[in-house]
Order: sequence, then structure tokens, then C-alpha cells
Amino acid sequence: MTTPKLRHAIYAQSGGVTAVINASAAGVIEAARKATHRISKVYAGRNGIVGVLEEDLIDTTRISAADVARLKHTPGGAFGSCRFKLKGLEQDGARYARLLDVFRAHDVGYFFYNGGGDSADTCLKVAQLARDHGYPLQAIHIPKTIDNDLPHTDTCPGFGSVAKYIAVSVREASFDVASMAATSTKVWVLEVMGRHAGWIAAAAALASDRKHPLPLVILFPEVVFDPTALISAVKEKIATWGYCTVVVSEGVKDDQGKFLADQGSVDAFGHAQLGGAAPEVAHLIKCEVGCKVHWAVSDYLQRAARHIASKTDLEQAYAVGRAAVQCALKGANAVMPTIDRLAHKPYRWAIGLAPLDQVANHERKMPREFISAEGFGITPAGRRYLLPLIQGEAYPPFEQGLPDYAMLKGAAVKKRLPPFDAH
Amino acid sequence: MTTPKLRHAIYAQSGGVTAVINASAAGVIEAARKATHRISKVYAGRNGIVGVLEEDLIDTTRISAADVARLKHTPGGAFGSCRFKLKGLEQDGARYARLLDVFRAHDVGYFFYNGGGDSADTCLKVAQLARDHGYPLQAIHIPKTIDNDLPHTDTCPGFGSVAKYIAVSVREASFDVASMAATSTKVWVLEVMGRHAGWIAAAAALASDRKHPLPLVILFPEVVFDPTALISAVKEKIATWGYCTVVVSEGVKDDQGKFLADQGSVDAFGHAQLGGAAPEVAHLIKCEVGCKVHWAVSDYLQRAARHIASKTDLEQAYAVGRAAVQCALKGANAVMPTIDRLAHKPYRWAIGLAPLDQVANHERKMPREFISAEGFGITPAGRRYLLPLIQGEAYPPFEQGLPDYAMLKGAAVKKRLPPFDAH
Repeated sequence: MTTPKLRHAIYAQSGGVTAVINASAAGVIEAARKATHRISKVYAGRNGIVGVLEEDLIDTTRISAADVARLKHTPGGAFGSCRFKLKGLEQDGARYARLLDVFRAHDVGYFFYNGGGDSADTCLKVAQLARDHGYPLQAIHIPKTIDNDLPHTDTCPGFGSVAKYIAVSVREASFDVASMAATSTKVWVLEVMGRHAGWIAAAAALASDRKHPLPLVILFPEVVFDPTALISAVKEKIATWGYCTVVVSEGVKDDQGKFLADQGSVDAFGHAQLGGAAPEVAHLIKCEVGCKVHWAVSDYLQRAARHIASKTDLEQAYAVGRAAVQCALKGANAVMPTIDRLAHKPYRWAIGLAPLDQVANHERKMPREFISAEGFGITPAGRRYLLPLIQGEAYPPFEQGLPDYAMLKGAAVKKRLPPFDAH
Repeated sequence: MTTPKLRHAIYAQSGGVTAVINASAAGVIEAARKATHRISKVYAGRNGIVGVLEEDLIDTTRISAADVARLKHTPGGAFGSCRFKLKGLEQDGARYARLLDVFRAHDVGYFFYNGGGDSADTCLKVAQLARDHGYPLQAIHIPKTIDNDLPHTDTCPGFGSVAKYIAVSVREASFDVASMAATSTKVWVLEVMGRHAGWIAAAAALASDRKHPLPLVILFPEVVFDPTALISAVKEKIATWGYCTVVVSEGVKDDQGKFLADQGSVDAFGHAQLGGAAPEVAHLIKCEVGCKVHWAVSDYLQRAARHIASKTDLEQAYAVGRAAVQCALKGANAVMPTIDRLAHKPYRWAIGLAPLDQVANHERKMPREFISAEGFGITPAGRRYLLPLIQGEAYPPFEQGLPDYAMLKGAAVKKRLPPFDAH
């Protein structure tokens, strides 16, 4: 048996960032630093795959161990991410060929791609292309998406922290509304992310439990919006509790299949308005129930809120990054480390491995049995799934009253190829 | 000298609640429990002054010491608050007379009113009325307002925690946008509270410091909205940094004196829309700069976020509650405990006392010298004022991944008077 060659690795972040994606980066870098007999250097693509295509690489060996550790408590994408989807090998042949050129030029033997469904697909295609060209490469996908829609993994790193932020915030704001409802605001509407699935909206239901019962009405993208049913549910909550909190997913659609957030509103000049499901729902309730309504749109607040990240989510994000390197060292290729649930209560999980051809282009929907029959809440099965994912706090260090997040100065890797415009 | 009589106290919360108003309640109750030779029982008005008027009182002696302590980490108003302004003694004579009736019926010698400018005015009038009628009463106002607009106090409990939430959130979301800006969102807009003054908007500036420099543009209600100047500032930030975070106060007005949040937008059916300064600003930037823009509206999220409350703010909220009782025991009347700044750095403060006739109907504006010359940021003087107020974290206890906030079951005090409709 020959000694494995010492080669470089490329790590890139893809798609919308999260509160814990940098923990996956730390997992990759720290695991690689323990295997310098195999992985010489980890290069990070600046702004994700765009940086890889443009040979704009950051040498992570120039980052101190202390700074790598700080990534674990820093939100956003430390090396930059991007929304840049590569299509099929035929349509995007030049870009795929360029990736191989960059890998060759820097003797890259490992490609770690950290993202959601689209990047899993890209990662798989890169693995296929390398194999077809006889270029020795191990391409490993590292799961990350607040959408929680990757298959073969019990959850996706990033989701648990959004879930925790939303559950905490809904509990807090509900306490606020409860105390004002006698003479002021009776309904509060919060818009949350989730264009295709109601995972995040479902997490809001955790705000209410036996010890802290709250009147919540949740609007899922899985349930066709029914204004009459909503108004009746809100009126019933107000009659019983005096107030009501409504959580609406940005992905909720009406019976015409049109997003609530895109109801064709126009401003004073007749320009189309940037939408918003929360103001639409708030407006409807105000008109139909006739009470004072307030609304909030959590937008990036929810996915950047590292200060209230889930410790479980953080540990899993780190673990999949580390596992990506570890499985690569064992020879794996075209796979994705997964989070496997071993037990609900007490919650136990372990890292598994899924072949990428079973991950790419398969979207996991939220099971209908997680949504209650009337469509405005979650079932015990939904709660049993969600609750473990928000367990534990993992506060960042604070300095001067604010979280001390890492701002890395990346040292660029010297370019060896002619320029290439990724776009 | 005669021994002071043993009498009851009434405590009521007023106006918009905060993350720490219950700490003031705890301060009152705990201090009163140390003075049972003077204050027999503290009754709380259910839903604030409405409960006092309707003789709907909660007996706080039935609340365990442990539950009183839990108030310190519970947001919202534990006894209910209200938006209910009493007018002058002439216009609202019947209501003021009723207050005196309720005080008499329950032998109330102490009235602790916890709120902002309007409740300071009410508290003063109650004191005057009692004096005019020869009814022995000490009326003490306890400052509380996220608007930070009470005079004679360096800051108002509730404000520091909103300031911290906004500064933390702006830092976090800016990290998010920074990492996506190469191919996706370049501008993020956050709407914050502050109808009349830009204190909260100003706090966003703390997100950026020497170690964590961020490209922020802040829109203050004190500065007339100038779309051309905004677009030019945003373009300049994008040119230099690649992205920009815009913080807009809900109170920003255009040169016609009209709120940005109320630009007369209509929905698809021609109905007037619930406004929103953030979507308006986002829409403008999208049209004029031509980049992808995201927006968030923090609404009650910001004032309910007990999980990221300022420890300094929490301590001050507790201290003014405790001081209200302590000064009452010393004979004070028609006063408000204040927070006096002794030193900026290291920050030191002490409790002072201001006469209510100097507090009521005086609004403190944000000094113009806190806003930078170009109008989009704060000055070193502004930073020197704000930074101490967000110092320290005071995390609530967590249970099952969520903050364990207190839900008190209030035992009602037996009514002794005929019914009265406050409205």
C-alpha cells in the first residue's frame, strides 16, 4: 500500500448564511490541522464558489488557532458566501472545467462544499466530472440550511438556531402583547422565513408549553391561506385569552397559489411595493376584527442571531464540518455527513454518511402529521421532533456590551491561472 | 413624634411595557416586604390604572418570594399595563375622584406609578388632588420608557435593553449581509421604534466600533428625510464596503412633515396599507440603487427581548423601584427616583430624586450634538452617552431550550366599592 499523497483542500460556503455555518468551517479547519500529513492547507473560496471559479482563494493556514476557534461563535459567512447555482455539466461545462483547472493548479485533492440542496447537486457533479477526467478528488458536501429541507439527515445545521430565536422571540413578544391587550394591541403578527416549507413557522409553536401557555395561530406554507378560518381562529383566541399572536411564514399562498407577500400592492406613486406577508395579515385582521394590530418582520434577524443560537445546532454544525474531513481521510467521496437521531428523549444523535446522489435534488418536506388538524399549530409529533433542536445556549463572548465576533483578514493565495469571470 | 401608621400601597404599570419593567415591580415589592412595619401590603392594579379605577387589584403578598425574584427576568408587564391617559383634574374629575375613593376604601397611603411622561403627569395630579382633599398619600413615579425621553434622569429604564438588542442585532445582520453581498443582498434595512426621538436609532451605531467596523446609515426623526442624500450615502458605502446597513426610525418624516411609514400606500383592493418605514426605504433603495435589498421591522421584538437585556438597565430598573419605596418611607411625595450619571468611563451612577412638577410634561430630546454633521450617524459624544447603558448581560434562566419567564397567578383583592367603568 502506498502512502497517501499530501494534498490541498478547498472549502467554500454556499447560499444564505446562518448563525452557525462558521462553526462548520472551524470543524473543517481544525480537523484538517490534525491531519497535516494528508491535508497540507485548507484554502477557502472567497464568496463561495465564485471565489473558487475566479481563483480567489484565502489561505486559512494564516489564521491563528484562536481566530479559528472564534469562528464557532461568529454568525454570517466568514469567507463570504454566494447565491450562484451551477447548472448541469452540459449547460455549465466551462465553469465545471474551470473548477477542475483551479483544483489542478493548486493540487487540490479535497473539495468541501458547505450549503443546501443546490450545492449538494454541484458537489456531486464536481465529483462526477473529476472521476470522468481521471482527476483524483474527494468531494464532500457539508449540510447547511435554515430551510431544514435536506434529505437523509434528521436536521440541517442552521435550522435549530433559527428555531430557537423564533421560539424565544414569540414567547417574549406574546408576554408583551398579553400585558397590553386590555386597552391597546390585541394581535401581534410575526413574519418568519420559509419559502417552501413551514419548519421555521412550526418552531414558533415551541414558545407555548404547559408552563407558559400562549394563544398562537401559525400560518404554514403547507396550508392554503383561508382568511375566514384565520379571522375565526383569531377571534376565538381573543375571546378566550384577550389577545393572540399570529406567526406567518413568508411562503404562505392564497387559493390562487399567489404568495401573500406578493399581493400586488402599490405605493402612492403606483409603484409595485416590496411585499410582506405580515403587513398583509395584520391589515386583514385589523379590518375584520377591528382591534389594534402590530406586526414585525424578522428577516435576517432570525438567521443571524448568533447570540441566542442553539447549543445543539452549534455542536452539530461543528460536527458535520469535522466529519467531512474525517470521512475524506478515510477515502470517502461524493458523500454528505448527516445528523442521525438515535433517541428523542433524552435526545441522542450521531454523525452518519449519505451518498450525494441520494441527497442532491431531493427536497425534504415537513410531514403533514406535524401540522395540527385545523392547520394552525403543531402536533405532539411535531413538538417531539423540534424540541431537541433548540436545546442549550451557547453565548458568544461579549466585549463592551456587544458580542465580539471575528472579522478575519484573509491572506490571498497566489493566483496561477489566467483570469476567469464567474458570471 | 408619633409612630407612622401602617398602610397599604398600590403599584401600577403604565404605557408600553419593556424587557425590565417587572424588575421595577420586584424592586417595589421586595423593598416593601422589608418595611412591613410601614407598608402592610402592596396591591397591583390589574392592567395598570384601569385596574385601580375599577378596583381590580392584585394582592402581591400572595406571590412567593421566589416568584417575585422571577419578575426580574420576565419581560412584559406582569400585572398588565395599559394605554390610558388621564387628562386634567377638571376634564377627568370623576376618574381622579374615583382613584381617591379606591385609595380610601383600601387605606392606601402609597401610590407607585411606573411609566413614562404621561403617567408622571397623572401621578403628580393624584398627589395634588390628595393634598387638596386632605387625604394622606405619597405618590411616587417610577421611570420607565424605551423612548428615553424623561427629563432629570440620565436614562430611562427599558431603554438600555432596547439599545442593546438593536446594537447586537445590527452587528449580527450586518455580518450576514457582508457575506452575501458579492452576489445577493447588498443593503439591509431595519426599522426601529422611536416616534419622536432617535435614541433607539442612535443605539444602532454602537454595532460598529474600531474592532468591528460596519457601514451603517442611520435615519433619525430629528433629521428631515432627504432621499437624495440617503441614496448617495448608500451608494458610497456600497462602493467602499460592498454592502450597507440602513437603520430607520419609525418616526422619520419627509420634508412635508409626513411619516415615511404613512406614505398613503394602497393594496390591490385600494385599501390603505398599514405602513412601515422599512419597506418604503427598501423600495426606494431598490429602485434608485438597483441592488437586492432586504428589510426587517423589529417592532415588539426589540422591547420584549429580555434574553439579551442590558444588565445595567436591569439593575437600574430594579433600583428605581426599590428607591421609590425607600424614599416614600422617608416621607417623599410627588417625586421620581432618577438615574444620575457620576462618571462616563468607568461608568458610575447613583439614584437621585426629582420633583414631579419638573418631570411631568417635559420631554427630553436627543441633543443635536449626538448626531453627526451629515445626519446619518452619531458623534463621539453620543457614543460616550450610549455605550455604558448596554453594558453587561443578564440572561434569564432557560428550561427546555426556552427562557423560563414567570406567569403569575394574581389573587384578586376583595372589592369594597360599587362598580366603575374606567372607559
